[in-house]
Amino acid sequence: MPLMRASPLPWLAVGLVGCAGPPSLGSPAHLVDLTHTLSPRFPYIAIGDLTFPIRITEISSFEKAGVYSNKWELTEHNGTHIDAPSHFAAHARGLDELQARELFVPAAVIDFRAQANADPDALVGVADVQAWERAHGPVPARAAVLLWTGWESRAGSQTTFVNAGPDGTMHFPGFGEAAVTFLVSERQVSGIGTDTLSVDRGRDTGFAAHRALFGADKWALECLAHLGDVPPVGATLIVGAVKVEHASGGPARVFAVW
Amino acid sequence: MPLMRASPLPWLAVGLVGCAGPPSLGSPAHLVDLTHTLSPRFPYIAIGDLTFPIRITEISSFEKAGVYSNKWELTEHNGTHIDAPSHFAAHARGLDELQARELFVPAAVIDFRAQANADPDALVGVADVQAWERAHGPVPARAAVLLWTGWESRAGSQTTFVNAGPDGTMHFPGFGEAAVTFLVSERQVSGIGTDTLSVDRGRDTGFAAHRALFGADKWALECLAHLGDVPPVGATLIVGAVKVEHASGGPARVFAVW
Repeated sequence: MPLMRASPLPWLAVGLVGCAGPPSLGSPAHLVDLTHTLSPRFPYIAIGDLTFPIRITEISSFEKAGVYSNKWELTEHNGTHIDAPSHFAAHARGLDELQARELFVPAAVIDFRAQANADPDALVGVADVQAWERAHGPVPARAAVLLWTGWESRAGSQTTFVNAGPDGTMHFPGFGEAAVTFLVSERQVSGIGTDTLSVDRGRDTGFAAHRALFGADKWALECLAHLGDVPPVGATLIVGAVKVEHASGGPARVFAVW
Repeated sequence: MPLMRASPLPWLAVGLVGCAGPPSLGSPAHLVDLTHTLSPRFPYIAIGDLTFPIRITEISSFEKAGVYSNKWELTEHNGTHIDAPSHFAAHARGLDELQARELFVPAAVIDFRAQANADPDALVGVADVQAWERAHGPVPARAAVLLWTGWESRAGSQTTFVNAGPDGTMHFPGFGEAAVTFLVSERQVSGIGTDTLSVDRGRDTGFAAHRALFGADKWALECLAHLGDVPPVGATLIVGAVKVEHASGGPARVFAVW
C-alpha cells in the first residue's frame, strides 16, 4: 500500500468527506415544501361548468358540536397536483397505480424565468435541456424535470396566473413536445413538473406535451411552489400524491429534500 | 501518526463502513407505502348524513373528449388521512398550518396485535409504551408513534373494520388518554397514528385521546396500511398531507423510508 505509507491523510480526508456527504433520511439538511395552499381562491383552468375551484363546506363546528370538520368538492386537477398517465392516454395507469418508487426521485430544476419573462408563450425545447446539461451534467435517470418559470408570483390572481388574451387564449410558458420526447426517451425521466397551470403552454390546446408524456407512461406535476428554493441538481423530490382509485390525477403534497 | 503508520487498514474500514451507513435521500434502501387506495368502498365512520364514502363522478372521458377526469366529493376524514389539531381543539392549527418538518419525522411502531386480537376494546396505556421502550429504547424526540393492531386485514369490509355491536357501539382498539399525554409531555412526539378508523377506541365516544393530542397541538394519522412492513424503530415517516386552507384534516400519502 504505497500511497497509504507515503501519505495517509488524503485517505482519511476522503473518508470523512464521504461520510458527511449524504444527509440522513431522518433529518435532511434541507426540506422545502413545493405545495401551494389550496383554497377556493386558487387559480384553475375554467372549462364551462366542468371545472371549478374547490368548494369547502363545514359539516360540523367546534362551537356547536365540539368537533370541526368539512366536506370538499373538487376536480382532480385543482391546486398543486399530479396528473396520472390516464389523464390523456387510453388504457393508461391511474393515480392509484403509480408505484412509491416513482414518487421518490431526483429533481432537476430548469431556470426558465428569463425566457418566460421575455415571452409568456416561451417553449422549452431540446436545446434548453441540453444547455442545462452543459451547466449541471446529464439529467439523472428517473429524475423529475421541473420548470421554474417564475409564474408562482401570479398565483394570487386567477387573471394573471391564467393570463388570457382578449380572445380567451391563455398565455403561459410550457414544455415542447420534442423536449418531452427527449426526456422520456433519452433521459428516462419519471415525470416532469411546472409552476404554471399546465406542462403544455397555455396556448397549446392540442396538449402535445401531455400526450408525449402520458403516452410514455410518466406523470406530471402542475402548480408547484418554491422551485426557486431548490438547487438545479442534487435534491430528491417526494411526491405525496393522494391515492384515489382510477383517478386521472389529484392533489399532492410535494417536498424537496437534500 | 503512530496508528496510521502501524496499521492503516482499520481507518480505511471505518471510513467505508461509515459511508455505507446512512442511506442516501435519493434512493432509500427501503420505501414502504402506508397508504390505502381510497374508493367508495373504503370503510368510514357513519354519522347520519354528515359523513359518506368518497363520491367520484366522471366529468370528461377519454373516449368522448380525448381527456379523462373526475370530480370528487369527500369529507376531510376519508381513507388514509391526517387529522389537524383544529379537528377537536378551539383556535388550534388547521392542516395548512402544519410545517413540513412536522411531517418528516422518526417512526416508532408498536406491535399491538396480540392485545387487539385478544380484545377489540384493548387500550394502549403508558405501560405499553414503556414495554416498547424496554425493547427498543426511548421513543425518539419528534417521533410519530404508530399503532399496529392488525386491523388492516379488515379494511375490505365496512362491517368488520367498524366492528359495531348490536347496539351500534364500535369495537376497535386505540390509544388511552394517559398514553397520549405521556407521549406528548414526556416524549415530545410530533403525532400518533393507527391502522384503525380512529386513534381513540371505537367505543370511546368522548374522544379523550384526540383531545389530549390536539390540545397539545399534535397531529393524528388514521387508516394506515402496511405498518407490519416497518421496523419498530429506525424508519422515517413522510406524511404527504394535502394542504387545504383551514382544513381539519385530509387525505395523505404516507411513506416510511429507512
